[in-house]
Amino acid sequence: MSHSSPLLSELFVLAAGGDREALRSYCDSLHPADLASVLVEAPASEAILVLDALDHQQSAEIFAHLDHESQQEIAPLMADTRLARIISRMDADDRVDFVQRLPEARSEKLLHMLAQTEREDILKLGSYREGTAGALMTSDYATLRPALTARQALDKLRLEAPDKETIYYAYVIDYERRLLGLVSLKDLILARPDTRVEDLMRRELVTATVDEKQEEVARKLAQYDLIAIPVTNGNESLAGIVTFDDAHDVAEAEATSDFHRMSSISLMNTSLRDAGIGLLVRKRLPWLLVLVFMNIFSGAGIAYFENTIQAAVALLFFLPLLIGSGGNAGSQSATLMVRALATGDVRRKDWLHLLGKEVGVALGIGLCLGIGVSLIGIFRGGPDIAVVVALTMVAVVLAGSLIGMSLPFLLTRFRLDPATASGPLITSLADMAGVIIYFSIATWYLGLPHA
Amino acid sequence: MSHSSPLLSELFVLAAGGDREALRSYCDSLHPADLASVLVEAPASEAILVLDALDHQQSAEIFAHLDHESQQEIAPLMADTRLARIISRMDADDRVDFVQRLPEARSEKLLHMLAQTEREDILKLGSYREGTAGALMTSDYATLRPALTARQALDKLRLEAPDKETIYYAYVIDYERRLLGLVSLKDLILARPDTRVEDLMRRELVTATVDEKQEEVARKLAQYDLIAIPVTNGNESLAGIVTFDDAHDVAEAEATSDFHRMSSISLMNTSLRDAGIGLLVRKRLPWLLVLVFMNIFSGAGIAYFENTIQAAVALLFFLPLLIGSGGNAGSQSATLMVRALATGDVRRKDWLHLLGKEVGVALGIGLCLGIGVSLIGIFRGGPDIAVVVALTMVAVVLAGSLIGMSLPFLLTRFRLDPATASGPLITSLADMAGVIIYFSIATWYLGLPHA
Repeated sequence: MSHSSPLLSELFVLAAGGDREALRSYCDSLHPADLASVLVEAPASEAILVLDALDHQQSAEIFAHLDHESQQEIAPLMADTRLARIISRMDADDRVDFVQRLPEARSEKLLHMLAQTEREDILKLGSYREGTAGALMTSDYATLRPALTARQALDKLRLEAPDKETIYYAYVIDYERRLLGLVSLKDLILARPDTRVEDLMRRELVTATVDEKQEEVARKLAQYDLIAIPVTNGNESLAGIVTFDDAHDVAEAEATSDFHRMSSISLMNTSLRDAGIGLLVRKRLPWLLVLVFMNIFSGAGIAYFENTIQAAVALLFFLPLLIGSGGNAGSQSATLMVRALATGDVRRKDWLHLLGKEVGVALGIGLCLGIGVSLIGIFRGGPDIAVVVALTMVAVVLAGSLIGMSLPFLLTRFRLDPATASGPLITSLADMAGVIIYFSIATWYLGLPHA
Repeated sequence: MSHSSPLLSELFVLAAGGDREALRSYCDSLHPADLASVLVEAPASEAILVLDALDHQQSAEIFAHLDHESQQEIAPLMADTRLARIISRMDADDRVDFVQRLPEARSEKLLHMLAQTEREDILKLGSYREGTAGALMTSDYATLRPALTARQALDKLRLEAPDKETIYYAYVIDYERRLLGLVSLKDLILARPDTRVEDLMRRELVTATVDEKQEEVARKLAQYDLIAIPVTNGNESLAGIVTFDDAHDVAEAEATSDFHRMSSISLMNTSLRDAGIGLLVRKRLPWLLVLVFMNIFSGAGIAYFENTIQAAVALLFFLPLLIGSGGNAGSQSATLMVRALATGDVRRKDWLHLLGKEVGVALGIGLCLGIGVSLIGIFRGGPDIAVVVALTMVAVVLAGSLIGMSLPFLLTRFRLDPATASGPLITSLADMAGVIIYFSIATWYLGLPHA
């Protein structure tokens, strides 16, 4: 599976040559995901040549695999009738995402060119709030009535299958669309043909609701190893399903946004490769500004202890390594907590237990580092400096670790994303604490003039 | 789906009451994953009471959902015959993982209690190197011969289904087990009953090899939205399949280890909740020690410029915010690159293009921050200090960003994990650069005595 340009130039040679049959059969031999990942490399004006030369079905499959930006670049170059045909061939969840991103005038025009059921489906799926299961789900699922026999059920699935995203699970509903149970295709195949669906179906289902957060739904699919999860609305009626591949994308996007937050980058929906300089500056600058103003307090701390420093300039040598160690230990603690909270490995109620353990870990690390740097302390500034440095090390590692481990919990307490407890934020907080701890201990132990 | 203790106490009341039937039907009404997540909360000596009261199949399903630590705690308390029965009912991939973790004497004893085919399967699957597709794959898949008709194929799957992890895809092989193609259960259901498998099967397959890295395989499953991917060995013969749920676990574990590496924590296989204080100290201390010794250079930098500092102590006020900004901007750049490399959003060949963009972004951020802090500079130290501080800010943000974006690429160049370019490492490098840049600019612009 190559993403290199040979494939791309091959495509354009075939498209430019005008031999549509050759192009179509070449594209048939490749996976639509591969074709899409090649076409995004080309300008929209060239990609459209390839897409226009293919038949509706091929075009729709490749189009659905393009990223959102590429879709919106190519859409204006496509005729309405063509685009409407492609839309009606896309999966229900993909086409909602696409239509919603179009300029309003165009999307209204296109909606009127679709069959009524398709139009209504798009409007219904499009009505759920972003980030919820409703906005992620698809309506391409198969349903069965409880009174059908296994043979009748299989016949029904056979008829419907080509249109459905998955027929590996079929959902059993009553006349008010209330979800009664689930039968897998495997269950139906294994059953005696005259067994009724209601006697085959599993009634203990893992379900989601339309308002549920997407990450929560993704976690359920992963925990129970499901191919799809049914989504119900308030009155228990089946509204859609979320499939494992979409759930996986949610989990990946969530991990990416956690990574970004943890290094103080604002939420970014564009891929790094496509993001412009202006966008990247806007996403990175705000937090850096906040951190600068936090660092002013560390500066003020140093200025406050100017007399202490003037009296023992040797202390400055140890400043970076002491406050650095506090920040580094704090980043480690924060990362361990943020990730463990995100994967569900720990919960908020585990806080007190983890706090106790963190004190133990921080003291262990602090003592090891303290002994290490006190040796350098003796060499650089004599035994008194060594004691100050060792004591400070234990204290700053403890302070940094406790800040790092507590902040993510505190943020969840206020319903904020724990990943906001980023390395840079923790480092800045630990710097402040470190400056004050270091020079306070030095002033006290060395009997230096007070500030 | 509750994970709280009421469920746990309910279980123990039933187990202690001795009414096995009540316990069994209670457990039947719950998902094995939920039961497992409740049992891990209990001591092994109590969990074994519940597991022993259930029938082999229930026990095996719950046991397979336990984490590795809990399995190894409970196994010694279980009789050999019982454990052998549970093992033979576990999925092929789960049972290998379990047996390999047992003490050698026990695993040999148990292997001899299993049927020969099971024993050989465990030994074969267990022979692949950790971290490869071979070590992740299962042998529970269905195969078909090309000459079968759709009806015959369905009959065969019907017979085999109860034992197989998935029958949604069946793999078509020749007499030498060479992989010829794939038919989905959906294809078979939709086909006319007398169509031959070889006329139905898809021949263009996405496959993996036994030696391929697990993360690579997980990426393929996600990219092509597959339920399972076939794994072949050197001579193109089918060795196993990797299913989407195991691939998802790999992707999640990979993201977790990237998170940990990025805050300088060594690779950790234990969950945070179960990790002891000693283990956590061992995993966190080594990198902190490395960073301390890197920070010594920053300290030495400060000591080198002692005369500059003595002549203008006001400079110290700005030290934390200047070197902090360099480190923070660098952490942002590193995180963006590490994550984009991990998800495949950017590749190593994009390096030069991204470098150009990074210079633009860093100059934009540096200028904004520089103008901001120069205002404080005027207020705290006059116009000269303001100029020094503004110039330094642009330079340190640029230096930090370039270090942050280049290091992950450099690491991949030497086949190291880019996530090793952690926030703390970048911060320490940026601190060193920042100290030298700051005091060099100050010495030059303010005409201060040289070191």
